[in-house]
Amino acid sequence: MTSNYSVAVAGLGSMGMGMAKSLLKADIETYGCDVSKDRLDEFSSAGGNASELSDIAAEIDCLILVVVNATQTESIINSHVANMKQGSVVMSCATVSPEFAKEMQSFCKQNQVHYLDAPISGGSVKASKGQITVLASGTDDAFSKARPALDAMAEKVFELGNTAGPGSALKVVNQLLAGVHIAAAAEAITFGISQGIDAQTTVDVISQCAGTSWMFENRGPHIADGDYTPHSAVDIFVKDLGIVCNIASDSAFTAPLASTAYSQFKEASDKGLGGEDDSAVAKIYAEKAGLKLP
Amino acid sequence: MTSNYSVAVAGLGSMGMGMAKSLLKADIETYGCDVSKDRLDEFSSAGGNASELSDIAAEIDCLILVVVNATQTESIINSHVANMKQGSVVMSCATVSPEFAKEMQSFCKQNQVHYLDAPISGGSVKASKGQITVLASGTDDAFSKARPALDAMAEKVFELGNTAGPGSALKVVNQLLAGVHIAAAAEAITFGISQGIDAQTTVDVISQCAGTSWMFENRGPHIADGDYTPHSAVDIFVKDLGIVCNIASDSAFTAPLASTAYSQFKEASDKGLGGEDDSAVAKIYAEKAGLKLP
Repeated sequence: MTSNYSVAVAGLGSMGMGMAKSLLKADIETYGCDVSKDRLDEFSSAGGNASELSDIAAEIDCLILVVVNATQTESIINSHVANMKQGSVVMSCATVSPEFAKEMQSFCKQNQVHYLDAPISGGSVKASKGQITVLASGTDDAFSKARPALDAMAEKVFELGNTAGPGSALKVVNQLLAGVHIAAAAEAITFGISQGIDAQTTVDVISQCAGTSWMFENRGPHIADGDYTPHSAVDIFVKDLGIVCNIASDSAFTAPLASTAYSQFKEASDKGLGGEDDSAVAKIYAEKAGLKLP
Repeated sequence: MTSNYSVAVAGLGSMGMGMAKSLLKADIETYGCDVSKDRLDEFSSAGGNASELSDIAAEIDCLILVVVNATQTESIINSHVANMKQGSVVMSCATVSPEFAKEMQSFCKQNQVHYLDAPISGGSVKASKGQITVLASGTDDAFSKARPALDAMAEKVFELGNTAGPGSALKVVNQLLAGVHIAAAAEAITFGISQGIDAQTTVDVISQCAGTSWMFENRGPHIADGDYTPHSAVDIFVKDLGIVCNIASDSAFTAPLASTAYSQFKEASDKGLGGEDDSAVAKIYAEKAGLKLP
């Protein structure tokens, strides 16, 4: 065990569970917190300490928040940071606005707790292998207090500045592109079908042409296979593109592609597809054009 | 020389010149045709035969059209196919609609000339190395008559069906994605600037995240460097996304991202940026938000 260093992971979803297990593999004392008993049991079986955050907040050096959104992040910070040790660190991983990250940093600072603005990327498979990417910004103290956990969980840590904000800003930029590219993949594949090109052919050919994207290559096969098992759900992009659109609006920035992609995901969600894989946005395109997907 | 096999390349632009030189390197007798004397001189200096198409149309086995659009393609086919040898082939590389490709195939067939629907991808550097990608469809006879030229010019030939149409359809699908991705790159990089993230940081970080695309990695650096030397111009995407939108409209297909991206390129063109690199669409975003680009 890394002596005298302990971590709590709040939120044992597909990302958080993998990250928590990566900490265990690195011999770091790790507590797992979640509302789901099944997830806590899974974490216990892997050798972790299933806990209530209120029981261990005063003991830990690093609290990693891998929750869904700003509301959950704020709720946990408001409830527990006052009980944390002076000089410990909160590492916040949800996709939030840069402004929100700055507010959380400020609140933590009032409690002598460091804050690392640390949105993550990479998916559940990479999380389970200790290979996530972290878009991080924060003070030197925040980085150094989080370092053992970062080393255990991440393949790549971008250090983007000495205050909260830039980490979240770049994550939001990434989500703008990711959301537009998923919707564009759906638009292109269904457009191809409308021209007599089957989905698999479009996936095979475009993957080797200049029209490709990381998301096209990752999500295109879901559409070609007709498999909408949610690896990342439609509603994630309703949320994340919603953040993009709100920030843009507040900044007098015009983001027509993000806004258009948002409308596609929102329509999919409104039609009951919010829990399906985000590639299910293709169903909206197909329905409008009267096309049959694989 | 490949005995008794000769080719004419009509259109010695950045793609056509490279393709014509690749044919020369493969010891294929090659004629080059262009309205520009400078380009003809360049081709002659490389060992090619600078010619008027009307002088050699009756001699060649393969006519490769590397012109800008459907109008130029149709004009050359209407003027010269009647003079071509029975059993020779026209290989048409411009981005056109599948319907147009079928019409050209039909016209060529009336003249006992084969037609290969053969849009290309890869850029001028790959063209000069004999490494283009060809999205091809046509009869077996069309493929076999074009084969020596394809072998000399292409790294990859997708064989997409035994009639004209699918080649052009997939090229249009590729251009839909390429155009949306370029505009999305511009939107994301300028959005990042609005949040205090400099363009180079966005390019460096996102290139290694799930938000990346082939176009982001290729065009992003142009924006970060402030270098709008046209490798491919804004007006190309006004044209190609215009084709996407027209086909979509004729097919009752809704393509909101292609339509939104089209509007950005069109606005850039209307503001006098049509001849700049397509990444100059970023200037439209920056101007609206009052931001300064590198």
